[in-house]
Amino acid sequence: MQLPKGFRFAGVSAGIKSRAGAKDVAMIVSDLPCTAAGVYTTNQIVAAPVVLSRSRTPSSSLRGIVINSGNANACTGLQGDLDAAEMTRLAAACVPNSNGLKADDFLVMSTGIIGRKLPMNKIKSGIELAAKSLGPSDGHFLDACDGIMTTDAFRKTAHRNVATSHGSHAIVGMCKGAGMIGPKMATMLAIVVTDAPIEATRAQRLLQAAANRSFNCISVEGHMSTNDSLVLLAQAPSAKHPSLNDADLATFEAELTQLCIDLAKMIPDDGEGATHLIEICVHGANTQADADAIARNIALSNLVKTAITGGDPNWGRIVSAAGFAGVPIHPKRTALKINSIPLFDAGEPLEFDAKVVSESIRSSKLTSIDLQVGLGPGSATHWTTDLNTEYVRFNSEYST
Amino acid sequence: MQLPKGFRFAGVSAGIKSRAGAKDVAMIVSDLPCTAAGVYTTNQIVAAPVVLSRSRTPSSSLRGIVINSGNANACTGLQGDLDAAEMTRLAAACVPNSNGLKADDFLVMSTGIIGRKLPMNKIKSGIELAAKSLGPSDGHFLDACDGIMTTDAFRKTAHRNVATSHGSHAIVGMCKGAGMIGPKMATMLAIVVTDAPIEATRAQRLLQAAANRSFNCISVEGHMSTNDSLVLLAQAPSAKHPSLNDADLATFEAELTQLCIDLAKMIPDDGEGATHLIEICVHGANTQADADAIARNIALSNLVKTAITGGDPNWGRIVSAAGFAGVPIHPKRTALKINSIPLFDAGEPLEFDAKVVSESIRSSKLTSIDLQVGLGPGSATHWTTDLNTEYVRFNSEYST
Repeated sequence: MQLPKGFRFAGVSAGIKSRAGAKDVAMIVSDLPCTAAGVYTTNQIVAAPVVLSRSRTPSSSLRGIVINSGNANACTGLQGDLDAAEMTRLAAACVPNSNGLKADDFLVMSTGIIGRKLPMNKIKSGIELAAKSLGPSDGHFLDACDGIMTTDAFRKTAHRNVATSHGSHAIVGMCKGAGMIGPKMATMLAIVVTDAPIEATRAQRLLQAAANRSFNCISVEGHMSTNDSLVLLAQAPSAKHPSLNDADLATFEAELTQLCIDLAKMIPDDGEGATHLIEICVHGANTQADADAIARNIALSNLVKTAITGGDPNWGRIVSAAGFAGVPIHPKRTALKINSIPLFDAGEPLEFDAKVVSESIRSSKLTSIDLQVGLGPGSATHWTTDLNTEYVRFNSEYST
Repeated sequence: MQLPKGFRFAGVSAGIKSRAGAKDVAMIVSDLPCTAAGVYTTNQIVAAPVVLSRSRTPSSSLRGIVINSGNANACTGLQGDLDAAEMTRLAAACVPNSNGLKADDFLVMSTGIIGRKLPMNKIKSGIELAAKSLGPSDGHFLDACDGIMTTDAFRKTAHRNVATSHGSHAIVGMCKGAGMIGPKMATMLAIVVTDAPIEATRAQRLLQAAANRSFNCISVEGHMSTNDSLVLLAQAPSAKHPSLNDADLATFEAELTQLCIDLAKMIPDDGEGATHLIEICVHGANTQADADAIARNIALSNLVKTAITGGDPNWGRIVSAAGFAGVPIHPKRTALKINSIPLFDAGEPLEFDAKVVSESIRSSKLTSIDLQVGLGPGSATHWTTDLNTEYVRFNSEYST
């Protein structure tokens, strides 16, 4: 893995999580002032770290980010606001050779239990330890990845290289999330770091566009968290490293978007109890936004999700979910394929071998749904999980 | 039960359903031309009987309705349109002393399997038999109720009397539905009949208002059917029976709304596998529409529904569901009670005895959620089911 130059990473255990030795504090620090962009939850019930980080992005002179897992610092009132600010102050104070670093130079993320105050003693020693552990190697990067995880069954990272007219740049990303929000576990967090030099308002625009095609296209149960955050750290342009030109930015945007899609898909793939990752491609809507609305309505339908669990080629549930998404479709030009097998065309069911379709669903983790709605050029791809008894058990057998 | 004067009912078995002897054709006929109003699914994938009935309401000269269960006549193309029209023609032709009755005088509803052509031979003999069986007694009314059921675990009826300045009038209603739509079973259908004399455009307005506070406030999994229909048949005003005056109409509207609420609540109460009926009261939204949006978002949250299944007083899931409903709330004035026990106030969790709340959820079929969002006068009440492993099994273990 080629890591971006000029960034150091750390992940340590501070005892916030109950499992002994589990990493729960992570830091990413830029050696020089860097560009930062952020996309955050639009939930009105929003955690203190989100409010703080949101106020500090986009930025052209950031120095890093500090993250804890195990406690979301959400619904924690004024104390929560103070604690989030204190985390960034501690990070600025603890980084070696931190002469002149200020709290404002750091972003903060938290994920975990909602409604409990942060254990600030543990957080403080964790940040001190993380600051001492910072380093530029793959091992340091993976430690940081581990430090942001909660109920994730596997570590979620992705990396790409971008060839530009100034040479090759690295983009690396990490994220966490396996669906749901709640007092036990919560939230999608993602951090992408690159040494490509990009100016802050451009970075913000690129990141929002990438989010719209990746993290905004996934769901497990469609419940938006109080803490969802996606942050991009990039090299700040300088005389020696001027900002990417328009052609290079376009290349960078394509790679960034694909990296975000790769990361985002890992979340429903790791959905609690999920046996299927469902990819929903909608074509022929009037606009991309309409295609998004249709794909999202299918992705959130418990009836579609349970049908896939059962290996049932239930076209009626999918087509009717498209019909009440609140945006236009052309019923008589609507066509549906599951795993490339046509089931429905021109508004009527086709003859098909249900056993063959069923077997194609049962024999693969990935199920692809392809829906044409017969109107215009708008298309979108979304990803979700199936809905099975394991998910229900996982989410109902826990008690606050 | 006081049945409305001037109407006759029938329900018979025509062999459309696979279970021998199950009633699957129902008719309701008015002795004189009657008022009819209708509220229908807004799904763009819409069944043929809905298209036809929608084109015939409101009406001031209708004579009745014919309904079949076991086959939804949805996604059936042009043949479906012809079959729906043929059902109304047959109804008009078969009613005893039907001299001069036309197909246009009847509405039609269908519910059941999607995507299969109606078995018109069976439908024809069913309508002939139902027409011969029409009668005004409680038994006839209950036969009609049975004829519209599909997966319902129990018969759903309600009745009320309205005292007006012209005397007492009866309102009776029947509905069917236990959640979901799909090739196996589908749809909410409801028919309300009254001998109160009401003019057609007034009846339409009253029915839409009642639907907005009842059938539009329930969900099982929020999947809108291709066939959902609610119809009101009322006595047409005449010289002898003039239309209700404004004061009487207001009384009638209140009774009609309550009757529709009574019927509507039976649907999530009968939700497939449901162990809880969840009543969600939202107060303090800017408008009633905003309160509806918040209540609906809570009602559709799998995380809220699984929490109730598990008897978990999980205020975080409920409050955060309110936060992403897409309408304003005041986070710092938000307050939540479950079964009248305060759990959250002024944006922060309260101390409470989780065991007491949990026991109050576990010991009753009804769970009440009361949420104050701190802004304005808008309020709404919605009803939904919990989400448990039985629901998932029911909806995933079936194969098309």
